[in-house]
Amino acid sequence: MHLAEYLFRRLHQLGIRSIFGVPGDYNLIALDYIAPCGLKWVGNVNELNGGYAADGYARIKGIGAVMNAFGVGELSAINALAGSCAEDVPVIHIVGYPSTAAQERRLPVHHTLGDGDFGRFARMSAEISSAVVVLKDKSDATQLIDEAILECCRSSKPVYIGFPVDLVRAEIDPSPLGYLLSIEEPSLNSIEDEEYAVDLIYGRIQAAQNPVIIVDGLAGKPYCLNTTRLFVQSSGLPCFITPMAKGIIDESLINFRGLYAGPVSEPTVSEQVHSSDLILVIGPRPTDFNTAGFKTDLPHIETIKFERHRIQMQFLQIPLSMSGILERLSDVLDIGRSESVSVASTPSRKLSSTPDIQGRISPSSNSSKESVEDVEFIDFEDNIVDKSPPLTQDWIWQRMSSWLEEDDIVSVDIGTSALGTLWSRYPRGAVLLVQLLWCSIGYAVAAAVGAAIAAREDEKESQGTRRRRTICFTGDGSLQMTAQEVSTMVRRNLGIIMFVVCNEGYTIERLINGPDAEYNDIQPWDYKLLPTLFQAAPNTARTYAVRTRDELNTLLEDPSFGSADYYDETNPPPLRIVELYMDKLDAPESLHGMIAALMK
Amino acid sequence: MHLAEYLFRRLHQLGIRSIFGVPGDYNLIALDYIAPCGLKWVGNVNELNGGYAADGYARIKGIGAVMNAFGVGELSAINALAGSCAEDVPVIHIVGYPSTAAQERRLPVHHTLGDGDFGRFARMSAEISSAVVVLKDKSDATQLIDEAILECCRSSKPVYIGFPVDLVRAEIDPSPLGYLLSIEEPSLNSIEDEEYAVDLIYGRIQAAQNPVIIVDGLAGKPYCLNTTRLFVQSSGLPCFITPMAKGIIDESLINFRGLYAGPVSEPTVSEQVHSSDLILVIGPRPTDFNTAGFKTDLPHIETIKFERHRIQMQFLQIPLSMSGILERLSDVLDIGRSESVSVASTPSRKLSSTPDIQGRISPSSNSSKESVEDVEFIDFEDNIVDKSPPLTQDWIWQRMSSWLEEDDIVSVDIGTSALGTLWSRYPRGAVLLVQLLWCSIGYAVAAAVGAAIAAREDEKESQGTRRRRTICFTGDGSLQMTAQEVSTMVRRNLGIIMFVVCNEGYTIERLINGPDAEYNDIQPWDYKLLPTLFQAAPNTARTYAVRTRDELNTLLEDPSFGSADYYDETNPPPLRIVELYMDKLDAPESLHGMIAALMK
Repeated sequence: MHLAEYLFRRLHQLGIRSIFGVPGDYNLIALDYIAPCGLKWVGNVNELNGGYAADGYARIKGIGAVMNAFGVGELSAINALAGSCAEDVPVIHIVGYPSTAAQERRLPVHHTLGDGDFGRFARMSAEISSAVVVLKDKSDATQLIDEAILECCRSSKPVYIGFPVDLVRAEIDPSPLGYLLSIEEPSLNSIEDEEYAVDLIYGRIQAAQNPVIIVDGLAGKPYCLNTTRLFVQSSGLPCFITPMAKGIIDESLINFRGLYAGPVSEPTVSEQVHSSDLILVIGPRPTDFNTAGFKTDLPHIETIKFERHRIQMQFLQIPLSMSGILERLSDVLDIGRSESVSVASTPSRKLSSTPDIQGRISPSSNSSKESVEDVEFIDFEDNIVDKSPPLTQDWIWQRMSSWLEEDDIVSVDIGTSALGTLWSRYPRGAVLLVQLLWCSIGYAVAAAVGAAIAAREDEKESQGTRRRRTICFTGDGSLQMTAQEVSTMVRRNLGIIMFVVCNEGYTIERLINGPDAEYNDIQPWDYKLLPTLFQAAPNTARTYAVRTRDELNTLLEDPSFGSADYYDETNPPPLRIVELYMDKLDAPESLHGMIAALMK
Repeated sequence: MHLAEYLFRRLHQLGIRSIFGVPGDYNLIALDYIAPCGLKWVGNVNELNGGYAADGYARIKGIGAVMNAFGVGELSAINALAGSCAEDVPVIHIVGYPSTAAQERRLPVHHTLGDGDFGRFARMSAEISSAVVVLKDKSDATQLIDEAILECCRSSKPVYIGFPVDLVRAEIDPSPLGYLLSIEEPSLNSIEDEEYAVDLIYGRIQAAQNPVIIVDGLAGKPYCLNTTRLFVQSSGLPCFITPMAKGIIDESLINFRGLYAGPVSEPTVSEQVHSSDLILVIGPRPTDFNTAGFKTDLPHIETIKFERHRIQMQFLQIPLSMSGILERLSDVLDIGRSESVSVASTPSRKLSSTPDIQGRISPSSNSSKESVEDVEFIDFEDNIVDKSPPLTQDWIWQRMSSWLEEDDIVSVDIGTSALGTLWSRYPRGAVLLVQLLWCSIGYAVAAAVGAAIAAREDEKESQGTRRRRTICFTGDGSLQMTAQEVSTMVRRNLGIIMFVVCNEGYTIERLINGPDAEYNDIQPWDYKLLPTLFQAAPNTARTYAVRTRDELNTLLEDPSFGSADYYDETNPPPLRIVELYMDKLDAPESLHGMIAALMK
């Protein structure tokens, strides 16, 4: 077997079905192996976009891969990979290298600096990767590939595999492919230690009057997502999310209470969190946006923090993996609630009698969601009567709460879109793709490409029973950064719904400095022309310009515009681009609050 | 004076009048200082494009500057800066950093990896920069800025200045601004050493029967461009250029003999070079494309290589700067030719009697150029008669020889465009912007933006007496990479002439692997729509689709299409986009030859 086939078969085993990136002369030959291994080459328009797309794909499928050429390609993509590193998204970056002979002879070949140093770009990527390997010899190449893939899964961060062009067809022993890579994280906890720690934690929960859960950003990582969800459901404890945890927890759960972001929270949310006497933080990620400028620490309230391999109880450090602890704690709390029995060696106060703890709604019930829609609907009818006022940020994001559907994938750029959508109510299964730490604008459009491809693959595997919409909210300044990736939506028939906030430039920057400064302006584009520019086939794209609330309401109410159920294989959804015109200084109240908190 | 004002005043002193880049929250406040310092903020659509534009600007003005935000912005631009490093273009990369307080406290602020390490991105840039400084304190900030700028000029490579947001308004002592930075390179040669070396070299030239000059890539650098040109003109020796030297030498000189690229050269060129007995190589840059796969070494012919600080005569190394040597040698050869007198301590054979050495044409004579045009014209008339055959690569690049005007700036992407234009005949003063080492496609469009801004500044300074066209030749796959920068052409009223080779994808890659592979295809765009998408004002943009030779001839013959003289301040040139439709497997003969040579 050739080495390139080995690599792509490994990626296939991980569930990867699409490879992102751009061809180049040092990776062309490897590209010939993609289709025979059951994978698809997406072919992005440029490498940065390919990197973002792989990130979006990985956030849906659990892992992604992007392949670029040495030097020019990999460096164009490196901002996207840095974003995956900051945001803990596992992406395998495969880089087609010059031949080992050229490297050994230190030849000044193209895509180098001409100084014979072929290690520069790997060293650059090492700063934003959890592993970097450059294959040199076929003897250890399959082992290095396997180790890099395992490290990618373990760390949930990007890894880098340098693949010289002359090793593509190197004959290797394929037998390791007979064993799947073990990417499940083994529990490091002993049963005894885990039981002891769970007793301690359960004791604190029982002792508290108003315990609450705050689910934070790292709770969404593969190593703990399911146990976090289990714990939130089983415990029934009032549950809040931080901005970075948006999309992790089913917001239709009856114990879901909203988004906590310190001073930027809604008053009722702040009140509940601040009046609690025990906070269980799952997957803490105390970055500036996530904490409204480091203003969410509540030192006067007892706090237990669940980290990947450590539980922090005030000044105590318990060196155990949170996943096992949360699972066991879920069992204990579930039993405590539903059977009202006391658990051995735990205090006897019944959790079910705690006023704040309520039952969860059953998965088949939709009442909570519907009531939310009703509220939204009335609000929106009022607005039509109100002589169709113009669109405003705060109105839009509230309006979207009732338009979003279950399992939606929402890809959002930092700025008014991100801060707006955080306060939309998400239906069950809806997930959010956003960079709240890395904050690279232009991300959302290209990430949506990757996410939509992932969703289509899942749909195919479910034989069409599960349809997911991919929705993108971006700003005009953001879209312009990566606009050519809309071409990939056209080329690969991705029926994405893209909302473009047209507000004349970098509004988030206007709130920080220079509200009317020319440097915050951009060239106005006629975004509706994008599908025509990209030569979309007839009936495969639709565009809209929306300036008033009743225009948007009319659009959103039309099932042929947006409903996932309206479309199927024989009638695939078109690409939809909606321009949302708003004032350049209008921003969600939450963004004003966030900027004020960050600048303080 | 505030530190930001100091920095921008320094840039102004260097001749910089425009700053490229994208705003971000860590550089916004500094942007307020740009206009008051007499500079213009260009505001690119994304950072990669801004980096390319700064490179294009620097290639025309001698130095350029680009300003981006920490993390996201700088990493998006880093491929462009790496290109400037590989290609020896001096660009100052200013990066707006988080506050020194945030850095000291290692806060997980946005645009970081959240790990408290603020040095990662500077370390990444260090791999592709000749100096990296991150300002920490106002006490040494002006000194560090000055040192970085000096190093940028000295090395002719990018430097990196990290500028924390809280130092923007730091009060500093402005007195160093009273002294201009000394960016002229002082000669390291003593008069005695220089005279001795010139005697040696002159002796070899006199002893040779057929000495020739090969001007190579590094001869175009500021530290030797003028002396190289002087030497070529004064010596009158038959002069060849390498691919990387295209645009350095006036091709209307009577001793200009064409482009030498080993096996890819035209037979008459190869014959002349290979039959010489002394080759003077100025500014050698033996990269793969420049040497047709390292096949230009002629060990059996005596060779003298002039490097920046070293002259190599066979096995001898003379540790002197080439600039002084070339200047002195020019004097000696000029006297030797025009006055037929022997120079002290040089052999007495008269250079003017050497058959291959001829007089140069005077600057005011245009006869050589006109005769070239006549030849081209006939060829082209024939083609019209020939039932207007379709466009082909080899025909187009020959046709362009007679359309190019003096002082044109030609920005070209690697691929068919680059290999094609290398064999076009360039008129006097025409310069070529191309990356023959770094080879990053997408470069040409954004570099043209920077070059056109530089040309407009020069035009303004010459009070409109010197008009230069900026012409871009790019491929469809290349244009798509950076297409949004056409928006900046519209926004900043840059009347660039852009030719887009529409041939369905990555033709250069098709010649290497997968001529019909889907991975070498791209989505076809309707490029003519770009100005409409970008909302160009009426009469500020024109587009054309050209499929046959007579269509192109008609276009090129129309003075209102292309002539620089046709336009002035009151009638500024529009943006012109010309689609050139050609077969996807058609490539210039030179590209076929180059690929064959590289793959051998």
